[in-house]
Amino acid sequence: MQADWHWMGRALALARLGRFTTSPNPRVGCVIVKDGQLVGEGYHRKAGEPHAEVHALRMAGDAARGATAYVTLEPCSHQGRTPPCADALIAAGVSRVVAAMEDPNPLVAGRGLRRLAAAGIQVASGLMEADALALNAGFVQRMRTGRPRVTVKLAASLDGRTALANGQSQWITGPQARADVQLGRAQACAILTGADTVLADDPALNVRWAELPESVREQYAEADLRQPVRVIVDGQQRVTADARLFSLPGEIWLARELAQGEWPATVSQLLLPREPASGKLSLPALLDALGARGVNELWVEAGRQLAGALLSQSLVDELLLYQAPALMGEASQGLLSLPVYTQMSQVPRLELLELRQLGQDIRLRLRPQA
Amino acid sequence: MQADWHWMGRALALARLGRFTTSPNPRVGCVIVKDGQLVGEGYHRKAGEPHAEVHALRMAGDAARGATAYVTLEPCSHQGRTPPCADALIAAGVSRVVAAMEDPNPLVAGRGLRRLAAAGIQVASGLMEADALALNAGFVQRMRTGRPRVTVKLAASLDGRTALANGQSQWITGPQARADVQLGRAQACAILTGADTVLADDPALNVRWAELPESVREQYAEADLRQPVRVIVDGQQRVTADARLFSLPGEIWLARELAQGEWPATVSQLLLPREPASGKLSLPALLDALGARGVNELWVEAGRQLAGALLSQSLVDELLLYQAPALMGEASQGLLSLPVYTQMSQVPRLELLELRQLGQDIRLRLRPQA
Repeated sequence: MQADWHWMGRALALARLGRFTTSPNPRVGCVIVKDGQLVGEGYHRKAGEPHAEVHALRMAGDAARGATAYVTLEPCSHQGRTPPCADALIAAGVSRVVAAMEDPNPLVAGRGLRRLAAAGIQVASGLMEADALALNAGFVQRMRTGRPRVTVKLAASLDGRTALANGQSQWITGPQARADVQLGRAQACAILTGADTVLADDPALNVRWAELPESVREQYAEADLRQPVRVIVDGQQRVTADARLFSLPGEIWLARELAQGEWPATVSQLLLPREPASGKLSLPALLDALGARGVNELWVEAGRQLAGALLSQSLVDELLLYQAPALMGEASQGLLSLPVYTQMSQVPRLELLELRQLGQDIRLRLRPQA
Repeated sequence: MQADWHWMGRALALARLGRFTTSPNPRVGCVIVKDGQLVGEGYHRKAGEPHAEVHALRMAGDAARGATAYVTLEPCSHQGRTPPCADALIAAGVSRVVAAMEDPNPLVAGRGLRRLAAAGIQVASGLMEADALALNAGFVQRMRTGRPRVTVKLAASLDGRTALANGQSQWITGPQARADVQLGRAQACAILTGADTVLADDPALNVRWAELPESVREQYAEADLRQPVRVIVDGQQRVTADARLFSLPGEIWLARELAQGEWPATVSQLLLPREPASGKLSLPALLDALGARGVNELWVEAGRQLAGALLSQSLVDELLLYQAPALMGEASQGLLSLPVYTQMSQVPRLELLELRQLGQDIRLRLRPQA
């Protein structure tokens, strides 16, 4: 049993290596062990490339016969872009398969394990399940609900201000906090912002490989760099193709009510209904559309209107608040537009999940309370 | 030398026991050691009561002859409410005196040690000086500058709000943060607030013994409870004697331009000039007046106007910011009124000294940068 933990831990560490590149696929690792010796291992690197089990089986060769395979996710049983991994494990003659978790899609969960069991292989599931779930939190959420996991990143001074009254806002936080934001972006499938931010700040919203922490650059070659899709909520159809984002590599999805205009080939328009009450584009419909397009992890860097709307509609799974040790004063711009509350009991409370110091800044990881 | 550290550490721990009661005197501890054995110890508990050295010498009796005395502050050489401690040490026949720091008043510093040396006693100073300075940071500052050390306490939501638009604000932070505020008040000589806060919130601003942490209550009997002086800045002479503070035990100093009205015996009026530019009462003059009245540690619980004015006039030594994991929205009331900045380089930066989690709240200890 202790050996099982050891090997599954290794499989999880392998799976983590794929966290910048597997989107929209889950991060999966596999380790094959025979007579207490590691004989094969691998991880899924990129959609369209072999699954973790295939890499590990290739490395093991004949040694897979009679071996135990540790996989961080139930092996697939369906023909996708690659043949089903359950069949490959059966064909290789492994005698035992341990999965950290079942397929999170309730319609297929257990099917891969049953196929293995039907072939006479000993199967088990649930070893280090919490770690496996955390590693693919976005994928799991999309499989279960059809919507991505939503992380809202905010940066402010200690008095909750994001910019001076005249709009100046650069360098609120320091280099360590900014590198941490790069890391967040790099693991996301898509980055969401609003037309206000595009028009006011003309941001790049891309991953800059050179700004990633050195420990990440060692594992993640510049040639493999994947740019998350930039998604812009543009309910008033104000964004134009001269914004800086359009000149940078990577796809852009413009969320609008109507298709309009000529756009570069990297741009597609995502048509959304309006909420009758507010007249704004429907954010639940946006999340449904992003889920349907394979977005597991959505990273939000938006202004106070869009971030506030996501929060007050209970569409946020996690809030990352970077605070700089500065005071900007009451005349400066606020962090979030929320409804006007008249009772303290109406005020949204959050659960503090983690508190970290990043240089002179601090980072709070928070979960909105239901 | 290692023994010296040990005994001075004990003397400092004894001195700390006086931190709730010695005001306006410094916190001082003394340990007397002979042949490696502790023969006497004591600390200063309260102004008018014996100094630390006197307690320790009484306990040591004849054993003080030829012993070493460890004191956290240079022994006094002047006749105050009690006779000079330097003379008492000489009379008891100690052979060596080690002080953690000299008297912080530059006019008397070294005089006590010289008096001991002149009597043939071996003297040393500066052992664990940083700890001794920290323990009496307010007293040291008052001796050196004539003004108290100023700690501003603020409490806000994560988006820097202190109250809803309609003024509701209760229970932003949780019980652990509130107990920590009680601890801060209990160690202060005086608590400063503004007329706005008195009129809007009708606060008690007192120390509630039952709300102090249990570890403190074990050392600090309820019968010894000292209420810090409440100081109210009332430039427009708006405060009236029906405010709740006046019905609670403890002194109140009303900072005003003119003496006016009939007040209970516990109230005195502190007359201050106005700043020509703003027309407001002079805060530097207020701090001078508080220093002259023996205030070492000033604890500020004020609204955004007074707290903002202290900060923007560079009169704050430390900021304690309690943050509750809640979001109150842009319509809610801001934390600090500061000048309108037009460049990020004008924004006040602070140094983060300490970051702590208190239940679900966090506490940042910050020092404004010069």
